[in-house]
Amino acid sequence: MTLEETLAQIKPLDERAMETAAKRWDSIAKPLHSLGKMEKMVIQIAGITGNPDMHINKRALVPMCADNGVVEEGVTQTGQEVTAIVAENFLSGDTSACVMCRQCGTKVIPVDIGMAVDTKVATDLKVACGTANMTKGPAMTREQAVQALEAGIEMVCRLKEDGYGLLATGEMGIGNTTTSSAVASVLLNRPVEEMTGRGAGLSGDGLNRKIHAIKKAIEINQPNQEDAIDVLAKVGGFDIAGMAGMFLGGAAFGVPVVIDGFISCVAALIAQRICPQTGDYMIASHVSKEPAAHLLLEALGKEAVLHGEMCLGEGSGAVALFPFLDMGVAVYESMSTFEDIHVDQYEELV
Amino acid sequence: MTLEETLAQIKPLDERAMETAAKRWDSIAKPLHSLGKMEKMVIQIAGITGNPDMHINKRALVPMCADNGVVEEGVTQTGQEVTAIVAENFLSGDTSACVMCRQCGTKVIPVDIGMAVDTKVATDLKVACGTANMTKGPAMTREQAVQALEAGIEMVCRLKEDGYGLLATGEMGIGNTTTSSAVASVLLNRPVEEMTGRGAGLSGDGLNRKIHAIKKAIEINQPNQEDAIDVLAKVGGFDIAGMAGMFLGGAAFGVPVVIDGFISCVAALIAQRICPQTGDYMIASHVSKEPAAHLLLEALGKEAVLHGEMCLGEGSGAVALFPFLDMGVAVYESMSTFEDIHVDQYEELV
Repeated sequence: MTLEETLAQIKPLDERAMETAAKRWDSIAKPLHSLGKMEKMVIQIAGITGNPDMHINKRALVPMCADNGVVEEGVTQTGQEVTAIVAENFLSGDTSACVMCRQCGTKVIPVDIGMAVDTKVATDLKVACGTANMTKGPAMTREQAVQALEAGIEMVCRLKEDGYGLLATGEMGIGNTTTSSAVASVLLNRPVEEMTGRGAGLSGDGLNRKIHAIKKAIEINQPNQEDAIDVLAKVGGFDIAGMAGMFLGGAAFGVPVVIDGFISCVAALIAQRICPQTGDYMIASHVSKEPAAHLLLEALGKEAVLHGEMCLGEGSGAVALFPFLDMGVAVYESMSTFEDIHVDQYEELV
Repeated sequence: MTLEETLAQIKPLDERAMETAAKRWDSIAKPLHSLGKMEKMVIQIAGITGNPDMHINKRALVPMCADNGVVEEGVTQTGQEVTAIVAENFLSGDTSACVMCRQCGTKVIPVDIGMAVDTKVATDLKVACGTANMTKGPAMTREQAVQALEAGIEMVCRLKEDGYGLLATGEMGIGNTTTSSAVASVLLNRPVEEMTGRGAGLSGDGLNRKIHAIKKAIEINQPNQEDAIDVLAKVGGFDIAGMAGMFLGGAAFGVPVVIDGFISCVAALIAQRICPQTGDYMIASHVSKEPAAHLLLEALGKEAVLHGEMCLGEGSGAVALFPFLDMGVAVYESMSTFEDIHVDQYEELV
């Protein structure tokens, strides 16, 4: 499905399903609204899927794997070859996020959306072998940006057909906190310094190089902050584009897609700028330790449940939300009502 | 074991076990410290138990069940009989926290530490049939307060002998947000209004009655804020005392005990005031929606992972932390090291 066709499909959340879910919560034998965000998330998922019954047991983490030309500028602590190593480790189940996924019954389905080299990860959605160095020109063409967005949309479409009811966004791409900070700085109209952190552990010198590279990329490319696709193409990455596409696909196909940390928040913001309605379909998980994370969540109008000081990437924060959500769904589905236990229902406060 | 003997046993955390745990984290193939509070909690548990290997699979939620004489003052939405109903529902597995416990393999072991009536819940640690109405005199005698603290200590001792490696505090006691606000107001030296919320859904009138009752109880009893046991006895409850005892027991016997929400935070603060070292042995879980929760966590020097707007009680917030902790432990135990995957280790920032 093309980007345009996808956007045409995105409708408001299903109010009726949400009302039914809210009523069910209120009948359960516990103080009204006392499970807070657990209740809100279940109600939101009802609105997303149009169904007050939850079907989130079949779930996947989809790490978008891509390389970034900007690593030439010395903005990372590790080399580009690590992207391919970790991408293959997603297949063998040997990354931190994979271990977390096993804990909560989640399949890991990595996508090569633009890695520099081919690996064992399927390449049918690959846009190119890495982006160009954005300090010297646009990271990708606008056509490539749209193609990468459509790859994310396509993944949600396929996974929905396979019966997946809950998706976590994730990424692997050395250099992708650099591109994320660049996009965030432009879209939020904030100083680059404020949007830029140490990523996977940069030294002070490295951080300065990173800030300098981002400033140069913005200066040379002059992305139009009113046009999220332009910003994505000029100073973004294929991984960010793929994740943004997943948020758009989630909204179009009625599949709940969970935001991860900093990079995923940037992708979510792009999706929301492309189509504001998309925001209602995204579920926030955690506040990353990266400095700009809370500003991005604020711009998205989201409040995260987990304040874990995590910044691992791979989708680890999104997956960490799943058991919390599962607990809420378990109470929602199996807990007695006031009637069952012969206690008067709590009254709604006036 | 008496309170005095217990306090004499409380020692600093085991630094060596913590160092070993921290080193193991640093060798794992992921950016340094990138699992944030997951890493910190595992390291803390190593310090608590004196063992860098985690043994937290056998775990329990211990809801302390008690009644509060102050309910005579119309400070609650439901009647005192609900305490006994819910306490028995803990046994049959039919409360919200029980459902959540089933999700994460946690046994629920309710304790009748002072319910107004006897139920199917074991009564061998019961101090009395509810407290006296604190607006007319002390809620309990100092001897009773110590007895209830010792009951909590005894529970941790028994559970440790039974092989439990992780405990969640919880409570059930109609009227216990009233006593908790009273204790919090005295110990934090803050206005009663600031410490008092709507509990399980009080109306505006009810909230005013609650505030009035707390002020009257403090006025008539003049608890000594320098003496936490005095405050507990005069304006506290048996459930709060039992939970405080569990924190002291956890510190004495080297068992990690997780703080739940508002009421549990009050109990934790009492334990910390009785023995400051105890704070190092407590694990924070969530920030309750009750207004004073974040002030109590601040006073405890704790930062909670979960910001879920929960205020259900029963220990539900503490239990909601378990899967997050489990994910951390899974990565800690089973994840490859940098050596395994042939990637250079990240360097510590200078």
